[in-house]
Order: sequence, then structure tokens, then C-alpha cells
Amino acid sequence: MSSRSDFLPPVRHYAAHVETLTRNTVERLAQAGYDRLLIHSGRSHARFQDDYHAPFRAHGHFVHWLPLPSHADCLLEVRPGRKPTLWLNEPDDFWHAAATPPEDWWADAYAIETVRSADDWAHVLDGDRATALIADPVDFPDLGARADLNPADLLWRLDEDRTVKSDWQLDCLRGASRRAVAGHLAAGEAFDGGGSELEIHLAYLQAAAHDPNDLPYNSIVALNEHAAVLHYQLRDAVAPETHRTFLIDAGAECHGLAADITRTRVRSREGLFADLLDAMESLQLQLVERMQPGMDYVAMHQEAHRGVARILHDAGLVKMPVDAMIEDRITSRFYPHGLGHHLGVQVHDVGGRVAPDGSPLPPPDAHPFLRLTRTLEEGNVITVEPGLYFIPSLLQDLREGGFADRFDWKAIDALIPFGGIRIEDDVVVRRGGAPENLTRDAFAAAE
Amino acid sequence: MSSRSDFLPPVRHYAAHVETLTRNTVERLAQAGYDRLLIHSGRSHARFQDDYHAPFRAHGHFVHWLPLPSHADCLLEVRPGRKPTLWLNEPDDFWHAAATPPEDWWADAYAIETVRSADDWAHVLDGDRATALIADPVDFPDLGARADLNPADLLWRLDEDRTVKSDWQLDCLRGASRRAVAGHLAAGEAFDGGGSELEIHLAYLQAAAHDPNDLPYNSIVALNEHAAVLHYQLRDAVAPETHRTFLIDAGAECHGLAADITRTRVRSREGLFADLLDAMESLQLQLVERMQPGMDYVAMHQEAHRGVARILHDAGLVKMPVDAMIEDRITSRFYPHGLGHHLGVQVHDVGGRVAPDGSPLPPPDAHPFLRLTRTLEEGNVITVEPGLYFIPSLLQDLREGGFADRFDWKAIDALIPFGGIRIEDDVVVRRGGAPENLTRDAFAAAE
Repeated sequence: MSSRSDFLPPVRHYAAHVETLTRNTVERLAQAGYDRLLIHSGRSHARFQDDYHAPFRAHGHFVHWLPLPSHADCLLEVRPGRKPTLWLNEPDDFWHAAATPPEDWWADAYAIETVRSADDWAHVLDGDRATALIADPVDFPDLGARADLNPADLLWRLDEDRTVKSDWQLDCLRGASRRAVAGHLAAGEAFDGGGSELEIHLAYLQAAAHDPNDLPYNSIVALNEHAAVLHYQLRDAVAPETHRTFLIDAGAECHGLAADITRTRVRSREGLFADLLDAMESLQLQLVERMQPGMDYVAMHQEAHRGVARILHDAGLVKMPVDAMIEDRITSRFYPHGLGHHLGVQVHDVGGRVAPDGSPLPPPDAHPFLRLTRTLEEGNVITVEPGLYFIPSLLQDLREGGFADRFDWKAIDALIPFGGIRIEDDVVVRRGGAPENLTRDAFAAAE
Repeated sequence: MSSRSDFLPPVRHYAAHVETLTRNTVERLAQAGYDRLLIHSGRSHARFQDDYHAPFRAHGHFVHWLPLPSHADCLLEVRPGRKPTLWLNEPDDFWHAAATPPEDWWADAYAIETVRSADDWAHVLDGDRATALIADPVDFPDLGARADLNPADLLWRLDEDRTVKSDWQLDCLRGASRRAVAGHLAAGEAFDGGGSELEIHLAYLQAAAHDPNDLPYNSIVALNEHAAVLHYQLRDAVAPETHRTFLIDAGAECHGLAADITRTRVRSREGLFADLLDAMESLQLQLVERMQPGMDYVAMHQEAHRGVARILHDAGLVKMPVDAMIEDRITSRFYPHGLGHHLGVQVHDVGGRVAPDGSPLPPPDAHPFLRLTRTLEEGNVITVEPGLYFIPSLLQDLREGGFADRFDWKAIDALIPFGGIRIEDDVVVRRGGAPENLTRDAFAAAE
């Protein structure tokens, strides 16, 4: 079994990360009219009428600074001209395992004040500074006028800064990719061995040395028809009689940054589905290559639709020209989700639908699920995940629609038991050259 | 690998469960001055400033009626003189796997109305009936005067009805116990094989055919010193150099009802820790035997403290008479938690600190963590979980206290690397005879 430390990155870039972040944040504060920023890590809440607490995950803006995604009830303060202050909650608690004590490599970047229990932060909030607080409103019910809570004019600016990743974050993303790839390789073997969805999931966790509570998102582990359920959230403990296809969309975390990787496998290399899988692999690689600074991601999403149209046409599944398929939104029935999204301390990272000047960038009407609508910049980290599925409810619309006679229903019906295809890499946009493919690099290094 | 269906109970008692529940609830409504009860199953909420949703779990009062712990946005209506109505949310959604369609064995007990998306329930709420609604206030922000939200005078009565389990629920609790025991047996083997905490956890899940998202609580899988952390919430992916002890507190679910089982193992049968484990096993079994109707659970908790005092005395660890140890609260440093709690659709099930007439039953000052302070009744399902731990921070208080010279610190220090002991069974209180030990019965059946 691997250990989590096998996937940890070097820590050399952390200090520079915090320095740049401090400088940028101080500038953002001035632009928005504040002279102090407080970021709360969040609080763990019991379920309604229960004393059960779901696993805790700190707020994104907190994890963007600090490699402490499991630390509740902490507060970070950023002010011009001084080191950021971290109020670090280390409860004197024999009920739970103590959090890892501060390690120099990150702790040196902060003035650290230890607190021993959840705090009302009156000692920090009271003062005459113009303070912005990023926090869940339920955690600060009595805030009053002591701070502006989540002011929109500051938040979009801080979100904007998160769209370009630092060297430290890139190192963490590489570590997360290596960790996820270790899981993907084991999951593939478990599929080849005839495992159930749950068994494959457990094999993934074991190889990635990943506690399920710390996964950046609920892994999708889908056999056969289940591969057509885009966010298939269950995992069957019983293996199906036949293993035809396997779609796994599973990530890993490293200091709070996420990998988000999808692979599709087919048991038999014979037959139309395997050909479609090869064609989608080519399409995905072509799309990745074009992720350059200045490229409009909406155009890339539309290009993905053209690619899917071409594949459907060439396979004889849809007897319509590519342009007509796009115009009549035929591909949206086979590929109903977006091409990808920002990736960082949140899997669907912030800022994807806002321009650098703060103006909204809503997705086109025909593509309501697209999460990223910006022009790409150097240092963006994005996913590239075209898909092609045979989803009975969406196919039904086509069967009942005006173009029903343009489809090879016999061939399509034979593909339904295979579910679908999604191939997803995590990619760093680079100036002047190919993007860095975090996913393919990690697979190559593991082989 | 087992399948979840290996652990499912017969469904013969479900109809009677709903009939009795309907009759009792109608009576409770009249007592509290209502003529209609609505129970919401809950709604899944995204994390703060994120689109991630944690795994959903329906509210306890909903699951008490319906074997649908994963169904969000449903509503149950109970009114005198008619079948309960279930508004069953089955979204027309290609993103997620459809919920299992209604099965006759439970669906026959309800008038079922299907809804296709999250609803504001105006069509149900509007009317002139005196309505009580059980729901998380955040899910009904515009409720106004259309219903009383979680009225205390009704809630304690409904909680009270949940303290005695129906035949249906007992069948489910037996199923959950079988499932958890399958996991415990595999976890024990993984410990014997030298596994890490994470590996042991994964072995448990595999044998219990249990998705981690559906566990009734976060399993405690603790090696060596970690066994002294009462709610040890982490799982190390790296095995320790030496395996001394293993404490596992892990459950399973069956139609929404929970098992909650703890076992402690020691690698070597030689030495003081193994003797203490045997003594705790005897104490736990003696306590279980005495769980009879009419017994005061607070007295049993105090009896457990006397038992722990006797064990500490007999082992020569504390050179004080049992009475003096109790009086000076010495045992609370070795056994700081409660003897147990109600068990049902919630792991710490409701009604544990309220008398049958609704008056509060707070725990004694010396035992603030005790969750169950009632006199036992036939049909209560409770846990019995005495413990004995070597917790450095609590021992420090004794080292610095007035009785420091009464302890054999050398022997105690040698026990710290073993962590501690907890043995927990789930027990049904029975009139005239021994209680039904769900846990030991399941272990016996598996061997």
C-alpha cells in the first residue's frame, strides 16, 4: 500500500505563494475599500435534530492560503504591512485526535495565535478597521456592523486571483494527480478482475492511500449502463454478470488541492463501442493541445460538440451533416454536460463564469451546464472532459422528435448497455507551447 | 464479497409498524392540539461558496416511518382516519441514478403521490388544518403561519414513541448487526495480518458490502495509542511498526436502522493489558445481563464505574478502595464517557434524557456525557459500552493531583502504548429474562 507521503510535493514554493497572495490581497482590499480581511475556515454543524457531524471541509478561500483543509474554527487575518495572522484552533480535547501540529514550512509564513476552543472572535472583530469577513453567515449570527460579510465587490476580485495557480499550487496539483493515478491504475485492475463497483472503489482508495472522507468529490465508479448516468452516485456491492464498460471519475487531494480524472475502459476491443472510445480519445487529446492562452473556452466547448458530431456521423449512428447536428442540438443529447471547469482547492473552482473585470459571463443558451466561459490565461488549471453517452431518457426525445429517421436505432440500442464515454485530464495552460497535462504526465510516470 | 441483500430482514412486520405508528401519531397529534403532521425528509445543501453536496441522509422522524434514508425532498402526511400520504420525489434527472422505485412491501402502506422536483409544498401546506411540520427551518424559509415548525410539545411525544422499537425495527436492527459483524470479523483478520488503519477500514467495508457514504457513523479504527482517543476520527494509511492493540467502533445500516458495535483486540495474550481486557469483557457481560425493564440506566452507569474501579484496584494500578475512587472521581479519568445510549434510526437515538411524561432528565453532574438517563422499558434498544483508557492528558491531571502517590505510575505508563479498551453491544430490553444481545447473537451466528 502506498502512503499519503508518497504523493506529497516539495514545499519550496509555499513561502512565495503566501507572499504573492498577501501582496495581491492587500491590493484587492484597497480596490474594494477595506483595510482588513478575515477568512474563517468554517464550523462543523450537527445534522438536524441529531448529534452526528458530517466530515468537515474548510472553506475554499481559507484552503487557498493554508494547507489545512480539515481545520475547523480557525481565522486568518490579512492586513497591509504585516505578516498574515492565523488564529489556529487546537482544542484541548481528549475526544478527538489532535490536529497535526504546525510544521515550519507553512507555519513560518504566519504569525500564529493558538486558541483552545471555538471562538466568537470578538477580540479580533472589535476595532475600528474597515473589515471584510469571508464566512458562512450561520457561523456569525451576531456580526452586526463589525465587518462586511462576503462583500461581492471584494469576493469576485479574490476569486479572480484564484484563477491563476501559483508554483506551490501546481506542485500540489501534480501530487494530487500522482495520487489519483495510483488509484486509477488499481481500479482498472479491479475492473479487469471482475470486481463490483464497491470493490473497485475500495481498491482505488487503497492504492491512493486515501480515506474516503478526504476525497475531493464523491467518486463515480460506474459499470456498463451506469456509465451513462453523469453523476452516478451509488456503488453496487454486487458485480454485474458481464463487465462491458467501466467509467471512473475519481480524484485525490494534496494539501487541499484536487485532482479530477475520468477514464473509460471497455472489456472487449472488438465492436463499435471500442471504436467510439478510440475516436473520443483522439478528440480529447486534440482539444487538450488547443488549450492555449487567449483561447475562448466556450469555442473549445463548441469544438468538442463538432467533434462528437463528426464521430456520430462517421460511425453511421446519425445520418446528418455535422453542421445540421449542431444547429439542431442533436449532440446535446449525446453529450449533455460542459467541457470542463477550473480546478484548484475546489473541484469546480471559482471564477469560471466571470470576466477578469468582474462582469458576468453566462454560458450560451444551448450549453447551460458549461461552468467555464472565459478566455484562457497562462496558469489557469482546467479540466478537459468531452463525453459521449447513450442515455435512454435523452435518446427517447430523439426517437420522438422530427429527425427520428436519421438515426441508426438498431446500432444505438446495441450501445445502450455500454453506457457511455468520458475522458478527463487536468491541464495547466502555458504560454507558447503545449499545455502541461498533469494527468497524462502522472500516468506516464507511473508506468 | 457479501451483498447488502445478505443482511436484509424479512419484511413481514412492516405493515404492522406503520399501522401502530399511525395510530400512536394520531393520538399524539390530538394531545398536542394538531390534526395533521407533515414530516419532511430534508434537502441536500451545497457547501458554502461551492457546488459540492455532502452525502444526503434523511431526517430521523422520516426514516422512522420510511425505509428511505437517501431520499431528499419528500414529504409524509399523517392525518386521522386515513392512510398516510407520501409525496415521493423522483426527479426526471439524467444526472443521477434514479432512486429505487417503490417496492410493494413498503409502498402498500401509503397513498403515494410522485413529484418530479424539489417542491415548495404550497399545495400541501395551504389549507385550514392545524398542521405541525417537522423540518429543518432552512428548508422552509417562507412557512409563515401555515404550520407550526417542530413544536416542542409534539416533538417530545413523538420522540417518546421512538424509544420502544417495533418488531419491524428489531428485524432491521438484527440485519444491521449481522452486517456490522461481517465487517468486524474481516477487520479483526486485517489487524492480525498487520494492516494499517485505512486498510482495516477498507476490509471492513468490503466484508459488510457497505459504501462508506452510507455508514451510520464515521467508523473508529484505532491502533495502539490511538485506541485512547475516544472519537478517533482519522485513519492512518501507514501501518505502525508494531501492532499492540486494535479498537474498532463501527456500525452498519439496514433500511435506515443502525448497528453500533465496538471491539478491542490485543496482539499478545501475555501481560497486564490482556488481563484488563478479560476483566472488562466480564464487566460488560455482567452489565448487559442486568439491562431489565425497571432498571435505572444512571445506576447502571454508576455500576460500570464501580466495576472499572474494582478492575483498577485488583490490577494494583490504583491503591485506593473502590468507594474512595468513586467519591474522588478517579474512574472518570480512566472512563470518561457514558455507558451507552438509545439506538435506532439515529445512532444516538432520541429521547434518552427525557422522562416518559416529558420532564427533563439531565445527567448527574459527575457524568455530564451520559446520553441515557431513563428507567429502562421493554423494547428499548440500547448500547452497553463500558471503557477503560490510558489517556495521557487525563492521567496528567492525576499525576498533578492530591492522590498522585496512590497510582502505580510505572505500570500505568507501560499501558499507555496500548491505548484503551471499549466493548460495546447493542441490546434489546426484554421483560422477564435476559435481554436480547443483538451483537453477540450476530457474532455467534457468523461463527
